[in-house]
Order: sequence, then structure tokens, then C-alpha cells
Amino acid sequence: MRILIAPDSFKESLTASEAAAAIAAGFATAFPDADLITRPMADGGEGTLTVLVDALTGQPQRATVTGPLGECTGAGWGLCGTTAVIELAEAAGLAQVPPSLRDPGRTTTYGVGELIRAALDAGATHLVIGLGGSATCDGGAGLLQALGARLVDAHGQSIGFGGAALARLARLDLTGLDERLARCRIDVVCDVDHPLAGPEGAALVFAPQKGATPQQAQALDAALAHYGALLSLACGRDVASPPGAGAAGGTGAALLALGGTLQRGAEWVMAATGIETGITGCDLVITGEGRLDGQTRHGKAPCAVARAAQRQGVPVIAIAGSLGEDTAALAGLFHAIFAVVPGPCSPEAALRDAARNLQATSRNVAAVLRLGRLDPR
Amino acid sequence: MRILIAPDSFKESLTASEAAAAIAAGFATAFPDADLITRPMADGGEGTLTVLVDALTGQPQRATVTGPLGECTGAGWGLCGTTAVIELAEAAGLAQVPPSLRDPGRTTTYGVGELIRAALDAGATHLVIGLGGSATCDGGAGLLQALGARLVDAHGQSIGFGGAALARLARLDLTGLDERLARCRIDVVCDVDHPLAGPEGAALVFAPQKGATPQQAQALDAALAHYGALLSLACGRDVASPPGAGAAGGTGAALLALGGTLQRGAEWVMAATGIETGITGCDLVITGEGRLDGQTRHGKAPCAVARAAQRQGVPVIAIAGSLGEDTAALAGLFHAIFAVVPGPCSPEAALRDAARNLQATSRNVAAVLRLGRLDPR
Repeated sequence: MRILIAPDSFKESLTASEAAAAIAAGFATAFPDADLITRPMADGGEGTLTVLVDALTGQPQRATVTGPLGECTGAGWGLCGTTAVIELAEAAGLAQVPPSLRDPGRTTTYGVGELIRAALDAGATHLVIGLGGSATCDGGAGLLQALGARLVDAHGQSIGFGGAALARLARLDLTGLDERLARCRIDVVCDVDHPLAGPEGAALVFAPQKGATPQQAQALDAALAHYGALLSLACGRDVASPPGAGAAGGTGAALLALGGTLQRGAEWVMAATGIETGITGCDLVITGEGRLDGQTRHGKAPCAVARAAQRQGVPVIAIAGSLGEDTAALAGLFHAIFAVVPGPCSPEAALRDAARNLQATSRNVAAVLRLGRLDPR
Repeated sequence: MRILIAPDSFKESLTASEAAAAIAAGFATAFPDADLITRPMADGGEGTLTVLVDALTGQPQRATVTGPLGECTGAGWGLCGTTAVIELAEAAGLAQVPPSLRDPGRTTTYGVGELIRAALDAGATHLVIGLGGSATCDGGAGLLQALGARLVDAHGQSIGFGGAALARLARLDLTGLDERLARCRIDVVCDVDHPLAGPEGAALVFAPQKGATPQQAQALDAALAHYGALLSLACGRDVASPPGAGAAGGTGAALLALGGTLQRGAEWVMAATGIETGITGCDLVITGEGRLDGQTRHGKAPCAVARAAQRQGVPVIAIAGSLGEDTAALAGLFHAIFAVVPGPCSPEAALRDAARNLQATSRNVAAVLRLGRLDPR
């Protein structure tokens, strides 16, 4: 028997790779002779860097860059031949900003641009950039600044960092952009369909989660709309309206302006890591994530894995840290879904014991599967 | 396919019958054509009355009796032909006594004796008495008093109710016992092996759970030892030492004095309800309980069901409200074990959603089983 094990990370407790290992250990108990193939998954957000660098057998790299608040910070990225893997959250992540300091009017993506420059310096001609978990709402202006763009106010002065500064933007000049970008293929992986501005845009939908008051979110939305118009003008095409332009506080728009292509995160990671082809010939696929709920259907990693398995007629079981509301909506995706907690417990205990519980649940699921196979009446 | 579903109750949330129905509903989704046989289980404790009356198609009865604190209370019992089913906790249960009033020095089993009298009045010649969940530590003295025994002090005065009063016992006279008892078969079902008194006896082990201080427990132990000696003398044989004499605060000893036979609760219920024979020809057995842990091995209902299934080579899966410590010790009993909670939650939420969660988990377990059966490579 051949089983492909492709979970996303269990947020705050297990990386995708650790989750895959726990599931495999559980299945190995019931099926010691099975061919268990672990393929950690990601959807473009947190953990994408590690998953891609591992899957593409790349080299982890580190760079010192500008953090979201303008501070100096260390950020990881990966080099796989001439492909560079960059995760926005390494240089502009919400997790890097203490809750009391969160302010999407101030935070910048400048460090992401510095990571891109480091990748170009290392000879990369293909950039894979995972968006997700951003602390920012600057439309990727900081990223463009780091790569040579000039964003100035009515007095010809640089507007500086942050989403609020975009309101003062008078001129946006891309002629100074790093020339090497023109020879690069840029794949932007994200799991968000939002445009840059407007009621469904980056500011009104996401800025409140990043520390903005409702008034700030309104002001940021107006600033992004203004910036989007100037950016589209500068690059000669609309980079504000496409779905995904609003990803990571509008960084999607900036990467579109650099000639990037927006990719559906989970689908792209699945293809890039060979998970889709790996499913061929398997008897079963196991996937999972820290939490499964009705939203899982909308582009999350377990959903992409399930659809790929369905296309090949391979059954799929999902194992999650917890099951949220509306899991009935997942009935068409997974043959069965399980949560791993052994009983009433605190979220802290669930996170602490995630590996052990995931392995135990996997063992029991495998045992039931084996029971069915042993007795094919 | 034929599946026997025999869970115990899920304490404080589902009766055994409700638990069996939830499991059956879950399995019916995956196996609409399967023969699903529900056989609610019990171990002699809480829920035994309902399980036995239902299984033996008896008639529920009610009587007004003396409650544990001497108050007037309503108590259920059951009549199945000439077999009466009595649950001690209906007339002397800990759940009947508010925590602030719990005092095993005062509480009496008098009402249990009244239930026995009601059964004799109704023509019963076979008494099945489930011990468990008692509020008492009176050695079953109240039960004997209600049936005609005289327990008096040095002045010839009745000692009254409660375990503490046994210390004043000077003479115990069984000659006035209801004569109909002599023609009765009495099966006492319990899940406890403790003797009447001593370090492993009813008072020192269980009285603290019923509200006794350590000093009170010591005094009750001495009183029980004294009572046990007089009771053994009165009936001409040792009724204090046998395993189970200490069940329900020593009520086991009183029932031994009446000629009763102590039965292992879960095994006896399983045989009486036809669960053991029902397993024959089944492809699978599902059992469960509110909580499974290392203690489950020691005579709990799911353990008895599992051993019966093992004797017939039928696989067993257990589904529990929660899994406690040391479930690894259950690996030899069950092919697989599952908890039903969907994620971190409070005990209250787990109890409230037990039926829904049990049905959902059963559905998913059944789906995995079906997956195995569909694909017997």
C-alpha cells in the first residue's frame, strides 16, 4: 500500500514537516510495510519558505534587512539553483511586531525588497514570493523603494515608509528599478483574491487585523486607491484591480507592477513540490491543518490536496488539530475528518500536545482502515 | 455487514441508549445497508436499571421511599416477569444529596430495603440489585432494617440510621426478616472488589468521596468492622471479608447476609442482556463510555464488551467522550479508540454537544472503515 501524507502546518504547534512525520509515525504502526510518502504542504502563507526549500532541495539563506517598523532584522530566504524562495512574513510579518506597536500606517515592506535584491545578487532569475501574514498596508511601496523606485511628495521629497505616507505621494517613478528584475520570472503565491482598494480591498478588509482603527482603515483605503492609480500609470497597465492585488496589504499590486504573476498559493505549491504527481499510484492521501472549517474549501492547502486526489480518484482523509464550524461543508472534499484532541482541554494544552495527539489519532485512523481491509466481506 | 453497538452511558450527558443511537446514526451514513444492532450496556452502576429493564422488556415502576437523609423520595425500579431490577442509587444515591449535606455518617440505605419490599409485594422472586453511586457508608444496615432486621444499642433501643450509629450497635437480630426473601434469588451487580472494612474497605477507600473527613472515615471503618462481626455472627457465615462486601458503603455485606450472590457488574449485564450472544456473527463491535483510561481495563463495561468480542474473534472499536491517561494500556482491548471532541473546549461544552460529536465521529470512523473495505488491495 502506498499513502501520500501532505498536511499543511499546524499553526503555532507543528511545521508541515513535523505534522507529516507525526502522521507517518501513526500510520507506520498499523501498516509497517506500507510505502508512506511525506510531502509537507503550504498555501503561500507561513511555512511556505521551508516547504518549498525542502521540496526543491534548495539552500536556506539569511539576510539582514529592514523590518516592518524600520528596525534591523534577520530574515530567511532560500536558493534552489536559480530559483529564489522568499516569504514576505520573514521581513514584514505581523508576528514580528508586538501587538502594542501594530500600525499598518507605519509598517513597511522595504525588507522584502531587500530580500529580492539579495536573491538577484545571488544570481536568481526566478523569484517565488509567498505573501501572507503581513503587518503592512503600504501597497508594497517599501518593496519598490528598496528596488530603486522613487516615491516622492509634492516637494520632491521621499514619502518615507508606511501606508499612511502614500496619501502624500505626488509622483511615482519606476525608471530606477533594478534592471535585473526585467529578466526575472516572478511567481507570487498567495491565497487571497482581494483587489488593492475599495470595500473588498486590502485596507478595509485586513488593516483592522493589523492594528488599524476603522478611521485609519478608511484613510489607508483612500491612500491605496491613490497609490494604485499612480502605480498603474507608471507601469502602463492596471495593477490595482486584479484579484490578489490586495494580498499582503497591497504587495500584490507592487509585484504585478514588477511583471509578477499571481498564483493560487496552495495549487502552485502542490504543483511545484510534485505533490500532484506524487498522488498518482497512491491508494490513499492524508492531509490536514491546525484547524479545518467551512473556510477550508476556499483555497486552503488541504482543499487543494483533496481536489488533486479527487481528480485521480484517490480517497482523502483529513486530520486536524481542531474542527471548526460548518465542517459539514467539507463532506464533498474528504472521505473522513478527525480532530486530534483527546478530550476537553485548553488551547494551550492542545498546542503543546499536538504532535503526540496527531500521531495517536493517525494510528487509530490507520487501525480502522486496516480493519476494513482485513475483512472485505 | 452486521455491527453490534454496545456503549455504556456517557456520564452526565448521554444514557447508554442515547449513546448507542448516536453511534448507530453515524454508522448508518456510511453503511446504509448494514445491520446495526444497538445493545446499551451498564456495569452495575448508574444507568443499569434502565439498561436492564429495556433489555428484558420489563415495566418501569415507581415507589415512594426513604431517601439517603431520611427524607421522602420517589425511586424507580423495574419488573420483568418475576425479576425485579433495583438500582441502589435511586434510593441512596450520592447525586440525591447536595454537596453541603453529604455525610456518610448519617446517610442510610433504608430506601433500598423499601424498594426490595415493593418488589416482593409485586411478586418478584428474583432480585437484581445494582450497587454503585451510593451516598452511604452504613453497611446496608438501613436496607436490613427496612426488611425487618432489628439493630439495637445496649439499652435495646434502635440505633437509627447511618454509618456512625453502627458504633452503638449491641445486638443484631435477623429473625424478623421478611420471610419472602428466603425464597428469592438475589443477584448483586457491582464493579468493586473491596471488603467491608480495613485499609481496602468501604469507609477508608470511599467515604472521603461521600463527604467524610479522614477522622470520620477512620471512625466509620471501626463501626463497619464491628457491624460486620455481628452481622456475620447473626447469619452464621463471614459476610465481611468477601470481595465486594464493601460495595456501596458496605451494602454488599448486607446483601450477602440475605443470601445474595455478588456478580461482576459488566459481565453479568452483558450476559443478562444477550450482548455476548449478540456478538456471534457480527463483523464488528463498537463500544464506548464517557471516558476511557487505564482504569477501563478493570471491569468497566467497554472492557467486558471487548473481552467478549475477543473470545469470538470479532474486532472492537471504542469511541469515548474523552481519553484519559494511560490509554496505551488499552491497546490489547480495542483495535482503535477515538475521542469525540472537535477541538479545545470546556467540559461543559463537551457534555452539551456529546450526542452531535459522537454521531459525527462515528460517521467518520465508519467512513474510514468503508474506505478500507472498498479497496482490498
